[in-house]
Amino acid sequence: MDDKIISLAHGSGGKLMHDLIKGLFLSKFDNPLLSNLSDSAILNIAGAKLAFTTDTYVVKPIFFPGGDIGKLAVCGTVNDLSVMGAKPLCLSCGLVIEEGFEYEMLEKVIDAMKVAACDAGIEIVTGDTKVVEKGKCDGLFINTSGVGVVEKKVLSLEDIQIGDKVIINGGIGEHGIAVLSAREDLGLDSNIESDCASLNGLVSKIINSSDKVRFMRDPTRGGLATTLNEIVDRKDFGIIIDEEKIPIKDYVKGTCELLGFDPLYIANEGKVVIVVAAEDASRVIDGMRGEPLGKDAEIIGEVVSQHKGKVCMKTLSGGTRIVDMLTGEQLPRIC
Amino acid sequence: MDDKIISLAHGSGGKLMHDLIKGLFLSKFDNPLLSNLSDSAILNIAGAKLAFTTDTYVVKPIFFPGGDIGKLAVCGTVNDLSVMGAKPLCLSCGLVIEEGFEYEMLEKVIDAMKVAACDAGIEIVTGDTKVVEKGKCDGLFINTSGVGVVEKKVLSLEDIQIGDKVIINGGIGEHGIAVLSAREDLGLDSNIESDCASLNGLVSKIINSSDKVRFMRDPTRGGLATTLNEIVDRKDFGIIIDEEKIPIKDYVKGTCELLGFDPLYIANEGKVVIVVAAEDASRVIDGMRGEPLGKDAEIIGEVVSQHKGKVCMKTLSGGTRIVDMLTGEQLPRIC
Repeated sequence: MDDKIISLAHGSGGKLMHDLIKGLFLSKFDNPLLSNLSDSAILNIAGAKLAFTTDTYVVKPIFFPGGDIGKLAVCGTVNDLSVMGAKPLCLSCGLVIEEGFEYEMLEKVIDAMKVAACDAGIEIVTGDTKVVEKGKCDGLFINTSGVGVVEKKVLSLEDIQIGDKVIINGGIGEHGIAVLSAREDLGLDSNIESDCASLNGLVSKIINSSDKVRFMRDPTRGGLATTLNEIVDRKDFGIIIDEEKIPIKDYVKGTCELLGFDPLYIANEGKVVIVVAAEDASRVIDGMRGEPLGKDAEIIGEVVSQHKGKVCMKTLSGGTRIVDMLTGEQLPRIC
Repeated sequence: MDDKIISLAHGSGGKLMHDLIKGLFLSKFDNPLLSNLSDSAILNIAGAKLAFTTDTYVVKPIFFPGGDIGKLAVCGTVNDLSVMGAKPLCLSCGLVIEEGFEYEMLEKVIDAMKVAACDAGIEIVTGDTKVVEKGKCDGLFINTSGVGVVEKKVLSLEDIQIGDKVIINGGIGEHGIAVLSAREDLGLDSNIESDCASLNGLVSKIINSSDKVRFMRDPTRGGLATTLNEIVDRKDFGIIIDEEKIPIKDYVKGTCELLGFDPLYIANEGKVVIVVAAEDASRVIDGMRGEPLGKDAEIIGEVVSQHKGKVCMKTLSGGTRIVDMLTGEQLPRIC
């Protein structure tokens, strides 16, 4: 690593973060479970396959249209388990609270966690609370770690085949734009709302509708572009996506144009990218569209033998461009 | 809760923290796993009993004599699993890093985690990294969550019987005094060192030496006094401890006298309180004394039918006093 100081971009989900993870964490904590860089580690215990994952939430502000840090902390970790093909069972909750934080706000956040946990059908079973002096954290940070059990097969990047289809369950960029709208007084569309949601119900439906679901990942930090790049990284295939097919709400498109953001890099918190065998793609899409969280599902692309290790996009204007991994930091503290 | 603002004392391990946990978290996240307030939740999965726990470490300063936040984050969570009677298997690692934090310091911390994990025979299998703006956290916070498997029985407060003996594996207060010495320039004894250590090896030896080990807990925040109070809370028995028998190093005693601290409330990070049937106490002590982390083990007290719900101490001066739960905050950010 050239930089000798940690910058915001090291937490962006983009290239610098990947460099930090590979250069420091993987080289020190060298083990096969960590090395595959999945959303969860898979543990073999007593003949069962358990998924285990962790995420710390530092979103700013704590409350935003469509959610808050509590809802996010439950949904985000539920989703990290779900996309491994695991049924989420329970979460831990580790709080770091700034001295002087209002009890009423804490209660609202805990209420939101409770509702989100109930909606997802999981329980919060263990916790920890730390308080630091005023000015030593930013209100409230929440870590949730989660345990789930894989009932069918573990989904893996290694199972992806050329010709597979790439699906997303709905519009991109809604979470990032919602947080941004709460942060800055931009006079944005009042319909803006984060897509923050637990996807375990939808994912379970998808897995049960096809035995040829190869891989899933939730495109959070770094957005859809980063997730697709993670899929092709050092692989012998590429992905080509079709801009026209990518679902995006008008207000997301409009806000991105206004501010010069590329929606492909904006965070989602209720979206899942699915790679599935071509012959099952229609069946999977049909099943998804019957679910509230999948009603806008689209086949957005395909795994191809060309463009090895790269993501390309057929643009609306008829050209093709490479979609790189995020390099800088577009929107810090989005989750 | 009367206070409408979170104070440092809400994170102290003492009475206010217990009120917050019971008044807010237990009432919202109502479920039997959380409600027993153990160091880990016990999950029944595929016929196996899994222990699951979480802790966020915000110790200040990050480096202190005998350890650092990385070593602490591994040992502390390993110990929370161990005291449930579980064999620790793996940990997650969630980092919150302040923008501008030195890469070299981060590397030192990660190295310490690696060494501590290796010493404890566990692996770090999943992680998350967040970076927040300068001034929005204090250098580095680390959450570790852990999964372990209970090989014999789950240790439980409910198994404690009148007449049982209370054992500790060595001197109290060393972690708290080490952190304090690193924080303030007190010109203290240069031999001061945190007791920070993974106890899974010692605990395994203890469990294998007796089938009548009733309960264990590591006396961290709030110290020995708080742990003993947690044991007797709302129970039909009391605990009487003997001040003369409580191991304490001279420098801890001296520093506490100098600063007006009560060592019973000072945090430990390599100590375990064991409640065991009287007839097995000598055997357990003998086994412990053969281990480096148990060489100063002592029987410090007994479970009694009197003083229900209270901890009493026979003092050196010949009197008896009640040892209450910590009410204020003696040393914030000790772990």
